[in-house]
Amino acid sequence: MEYEISDKLKNVHGSAIREIFDLLKRGNIISFAGGMPATQTLPSKQIEGILQNIISKYGVIECLQYESTLGKALLLEQLKSFLAEYKGINAELQNMIVLSGGQQGIEFMCKTFVNKGDTVLVENPTYLSTLQIIQTYEAKAVGVSSNNEGLDLADLEEKIKTHKPKFLYTVPTFGNPTGGTYSIENRQKIAEITARYGVMVLEDDPYSQIRFEGEAVPSIKCFDKSENVVYLASFSKIIAPAMRIAVAVANPAIIGRFNISKQSTDVCSSSISQIVVAEFIKNNLAEHLKNIIPIYKEKRDQMVNCIEKYFPKSFKYQVPNGGMFVWGYFDNERDLLACFKEIVDLGVAYLPGTHFFPDGGWKNTMRLNFSNATLEQIEKGIKIIGEYFEGGNK
Amino acid sequence: MEYEISDKLKNVHGSAIREIFDLLKRGNIISFAGGMPATQTLPSKQIEGILQNIISKYGVIECLQYESTLGKALLLEQLKSFLAEYKGINAELQNMIVLSGGQQGIEFMCKTFVNKGDTVLVENPTYLSTLQIIQTYEAKAVGVSSNNEGLDLADLEEKIKTHKPKFLYTVPTFGNPTGGTYSIENRQKIAEITARYGVMVLEDDPYSQIRFEGEAVPSIKCFDKSENVVYLASFSKIIAPAMRIAVAVANPAIIGRFNISKQSTDVCSSSISQIVVAEFIKNNLAEHLKNIIPIYKEKRDQMVNCIEKYFPKSFKYQVPNGGMFVWGYFDNERDLLACFKEIVDLGVAYLPGTHFFPDGGWKNTMRLNFSNATLEQIEKGIKIIGEYFEGGNK
Repeated sequence: MEYEISDKLKNVHGSAIREIFDLLKRGNIISFAGGMPATQTLPSKQIEGILQNIISKYGVIECLQYESTLGKALLLEQLKSFLAEYKGINAELQNMIVLSGGQQGIEFMCKTFVNKGDTVLVENPTYLSTLQIIQTYEAKAVGVSSNNEGLDLADLEEKIKTHKPKFLYTVPTFGNPTGGTYSIENRQKIAEITARYGVMVLEDDPYSQIRFEGEAVPSIKCFDKSENVVYLASFSKIIAPAMRIAVAVANPAIIGRFNISKQSTDVCSSSISQIVVAEFIKNNLAEHLKNIIPIYKEKRDQMVNCIEKYFPKSFKYQVPNGGMFVWGYFDNERDLLACFKEIVDLGVAYLPGTHFFPDGGWKNTMRLNFSNATLEQIEKGIKIIGEYFEGGNK
Repeated sequence: MEYEISDKLKNVHGSAIREIFDLLKRGNIISFAGGMPATQTLPSKQIEGILQNIISKYGVIECLQYESTLGKALLLEQLKSFLAEYKGINAELQNMIVLSGGQQGIEFMCKTFVNKGDTVLVENPTYLSTLQIIQTYEAKAVGVSSNNEGLDLADLEEKIKTHKPKFLYTVPTFGNPTGGTYSIENRQKIAEITARYGVMVLEDDPYSQIRFEGEAVPSIKCFDKSENVVYLASFSKIIAPAMRIAVAVANPAIIGRFNISKQSTDVCSSSISQIVVAEFIKNNLAEHLKNIIPIYKEKRDQMVNCIEKYFPKSFKYQVPNGGMFVWGYFDNERDLLACFKEIVDLGVAYLPGTHFFPDGGWKNTMRLNFSNATLEQIEKGIKIIGEYFEGGNK
C-alpha cells in the first residue's frame, strides 16, 4: 500500500549526511567526518570489572526489573556530585532526569515547548541533529551570529524580538561544529537577555571535560536566576557512547514534562548502563579524564600541525582548546560540498560545513573531527586533503 | 519564569495512574496494579554469565562505541531466527529495527503517521500508555468494540469509514488489559479489512510466549499481504524489562521512518543490552520459557481460584490462557474508581478499568495483574478485596 507519512516526517530525509556515511561504509577511508570518541579512550577494563559481578552486588530487581522513569536513585546521587564537582551546578533530585543520551534531551525540549510553526534559535552554525529534530516538530531554526566572544548579543536580542522563539539551543563549550567556547561575560549576558524576554535556553554540554588548556568556564546554567535554562550533560564522550546515559537539569516543572515524554518513549534507561555510569563516576572518572585528555590533545596538535604543514594558507581556522573538532573555511569561494566526493575517492572524508547552517550556504566551510583517527591517519588524511587543494582543485 | 508548555503536552497529566503509583510507594501494599514480570523469572544467573566476559569476547568497539541506529548486526541475526521460530514471521534485515522497548514503537508509529487532529483506532479497552502517547500527538483515540472472537469486525469497518483513522492499535494475544486473544479468523479479517481501506495496523505483541494452554495463534502480521501491518515484539516480559530491547517489523519504507525517529531520540539502543539479548535468544530462551511459563500459570491459577473463593458472584471475568492480567467487572453499578483508595487503605491495589477506555466510563471494571505478587500475596490480596465487596461496600 502507499504510505501517507505524517507532516512531521514526510520532508525529513537527512539525505546529505546519510549519503556521506553510506559513502564511508566502503571502508579504507580515513574519516574526519564523524564525532565518535577515540576507541582507545573507552574504559573497557573498568567497565568489564563493574559488569563482572553487577547482578550479585546490586541484586536482580535493581539490575533487571522496570526502573523509575526519572532514573535510578543510586545514579542520581552520583550525578548530583558530578554536577557540583565538574560543572559547578547545584542540582537537587527534583531538578534531574536521566536520559538515554543527550539527544533525547533535545527531543524532549522540543516536545515540551515547540508547536508547529514555532521558531527555535540556534548558533549559526549548529549541531546538525538539532536541526533535524527541530524539523520533525515542524518548527523553524533561525541562526544567531557568533563571534570570538560567543553569540553576537545584539543579533540574539534582535532575533528574539523578531521571531519570539520558544528556545535558544546552544553548545557553548567546545561547540559542535565550531569548537569555540563562549566567554564568561557572554554566558552571563545570554542568561540575562533570554530571561528578560522569557525565552528558554537549552544548554548542551557534552564536551567541556575534554579541555586541553585554559581555565574551565562556568556554564550558562550557573547564571540562570529565572530558571529558564535547561542543561544537558552527557557521558557519551567521557565514558562511552554505548552506555546511552545523559542527564537533564531544570526546574521541577520542566523535569515533570520530560518525565511524561520519557514515559511515552523508552520508559526508563537501561539499568545496567545506569549502574555502570554511577560506579564509574564514583570510582574511575577523575583518573580516567586525566588519562584521556592528553590523548585528545595529541590528536588536536597533530591535526593543527598537519593543517599548517599541508593546507593552503587560504584556509582559516581557530585552534580549539578542547572538544573534538576543528572548524575552518577557505577565504576564497571553494565549494567543499561539490568536491567532497572527489576527496572521498582519494580516501579521506571531512564534513561539509553547509549542513550545520539552518539555511544552508557557507559552502567554503568544513568540520574536521580529530578524535577518532590515529595520529598516522591524521597526517595521511590531512596531507591528501591539503594536496588536493594546493593542486589548485576546487 | 512562567513556562509556556506546547499544545502536545499541556493537557497530558497521566495524573490518575501516577497518583495510583504514588499511593503504592507507601509500601506494604499488595499490588495487582502494575504489569511487571515476576522477579523470580528474571534470568539473573544467565545474564550475569553473559556480562562477565562480554567486552573481552565482543571487543571494545562492539560493546562501547556508537552503534547503528537500526541495531547491531549480531542481534538482528538472532531476531530473524526468533521471529521465524516463535512468531512465524519471515523478516529480512531491511524489515527490522531494534527499539529501546516496545513503547518506543508506539511513539514512532505516531510520529510516522499521525498529524494533529487525526484519529487512531484502539480496542475498547486498550493499553493506557498508548492512549497517553496518542494524546501527545494531539490525536484522538476511538475505541472499537470487541467480543469473544476478537475485534467486532462490523464496528471496526464502521469506525474506519466514519473516522478515516491513521492506524489501528491492537494487542491481539493475551491483550492488555483484557487478557483476551483474537481468533485466527478474526486476525485474518482484521488484516483484510484494514488493507482494503488503506489503514495501517500496529500489532503489539509482548505477551504471546507466556501461554498456559491452547495452541499458538498466528499474528495479524502473518496475514499481512499489503504490508500495512507494523509488528512489535518485546523482550521485557520474557527476558528482562531493564534490558529495554524490542523489535519492530515492517515494510522497509516504514523502517526508514522509524530510523529517522530513532536518530532524533536515543540514536541507538544500549550495546550491552543488545548483546545480552542476542546471546540469550541463541542459548537460553527456549529453556527459559519452559521454566517461567509454569510459574506464571501457577499465579494465574491461584488468582482465579481465589476470585472464585472470595469474590461475590456478581464479579464476571474470563480466565486468560496466558499473559499477566485478569480483567473483570461487576454486573451491577459498583464504582471501582471511587472505592479504590479505601481498598488501598486495606493494603491492596488493583487498577480501575476506566483508565483503559479512551472515553472513560466503565467504572465497574478492574484489571488484576497476577505476575508480580507471590502466591501468598495473591490469596491475601484477593481475600481483602473480596471481603470488601462481599461486605456490601461499594
